[in-house]
Amino acid sequence: MSSLITDTQNHVSLLIETVDFAAKKHKSQKRKDIAQTPYINHPIGVARILTLEGGVTDLNVIQAALLHDTVEDTNTTFEEIEEIFGRKIRDIVYEVTDDKTLPKLERKRLQIEHAPHCTYEAKLVKLADKLYNLRDLMHQTPRGWTKERVNEYFVWASKVVARLRGTNKELESSLDLLFRKRGVVTD
Amino acid sequence: MSSLITDTQNHVSLLIETVDFAAKKHKSQKRKDIAQTPYINHPIGVARILTLEGGVTDLNVIQAALLHDTVEDTNTTFEEIEEIFGRKIRDIVYEVTDDKTLPKLERKRLQIEHAPHCTYEAKLVKLADKLYNLRDLMHQTPRGWTKERVNEYFVWASKVVARLRGTNKELESSLDLLFRKRGVVTD
Ligand SMILES: [Mn+2]
Ligand SMILES: [Mn+2]
Repeated sequence: MSSLITDTQNHVSLLIETVDFAAKKHKSQKRKDIAQTPYINHPIGVARILTLEGGVTDLNVIQAALLHDTVEDTNTTFEEIEEIFGRKIRDIVYEVTDDKTLPKLERKRLQIEHAPHCTYEAKLVKLADKLYNLRDLMHQTPRGWTKERVNEYFVWASKVVARLRGTNKELESSLDLLFRKRGVVTD
Repeated sequence: MSSLITDTQNHVSLLIETVDFAAKKHKSQKRKDIAQTPYINHPIGVARILTLEGGVTDLNVIQAALLHDTVEDTNTTFEEIEEIFGRKIRDIVYEVTDDKTLPKLERKRLQIEHAPHCTYEAKLVKLADKLYNLRDLMHQTPRGWTKERVNEYFVWASKVVARLRGTNKELESSLDLLFRKRGVVTD
């Protein structure tokens, strides 16, 4: 029993350590909305979609969600993630990180291609990330985006999500609702 | 045993819920540093001082740390905190919130006066908050602050901390180290 209590205490420390790491890494970045929301609100919101809506309680998944854009969008390395948070979390973050040395269209194509081959944990993070971003787009068109670009994003996201199905009923239902609202035909 | 497992899961959800709430409330605020760090990095850093340095594992204290500036600096009300996070956390946040209807000097005087009468939980948050802010000041003078203003802040903080003693050895030692470095005499 005492080891479970210790686990609980570790959970608290680990989560705070993880969100602190991500907040520092993203500190000079903003979301693309007009209000220029701090970027860190996004990974925190993705983690919240997983816990609150997806019923996900696996700490590795929640930590990976908090860290999911650190390597792609900041100076963070996979080695750093592994050293601080361990191999398991590094591997999930690796799976959800686009290779920025590739052209954008190729990265987008690869997300569709790779989706079904991801681990369950990475699929969860991907679903929650898409759900967060699509809700943002429903709410407000980002600075400098045309209506067409928003539409294209929805169509692309629906193709990725189609290949992530069978992972989490709640998240997939919420995504389907958005696609229907937007008139995007899925599957 | 299963109730402890559920507790662990609840801990994860509760922490994410709390940091998400605080991040949204503080989303348009920045710290006073030149880099204009998002404000949310501060409450997250205060929570981290408590877990990592203070060895604090009481979830109420960590949640209160994440929320500690929401009522003072955003449109959040104590009623809102109580409704979402419960009476206990509302009470800690209440204890660490300055009454902004009072003049600034009076608020500063009251912090010194009230310090010894705070609960253990509120004292922990106050110590970690001071430690975070003083480290920030050691590191960099905020926009628009003179050297004298920084010095006065150190002297004032040392008076508050003097009346919070006997709460957490690690946090108090770290604060003492800063006061010594700065040449502020404490007793
Ligand atoms: Mn993302
Ligand atoms: Mn504060």
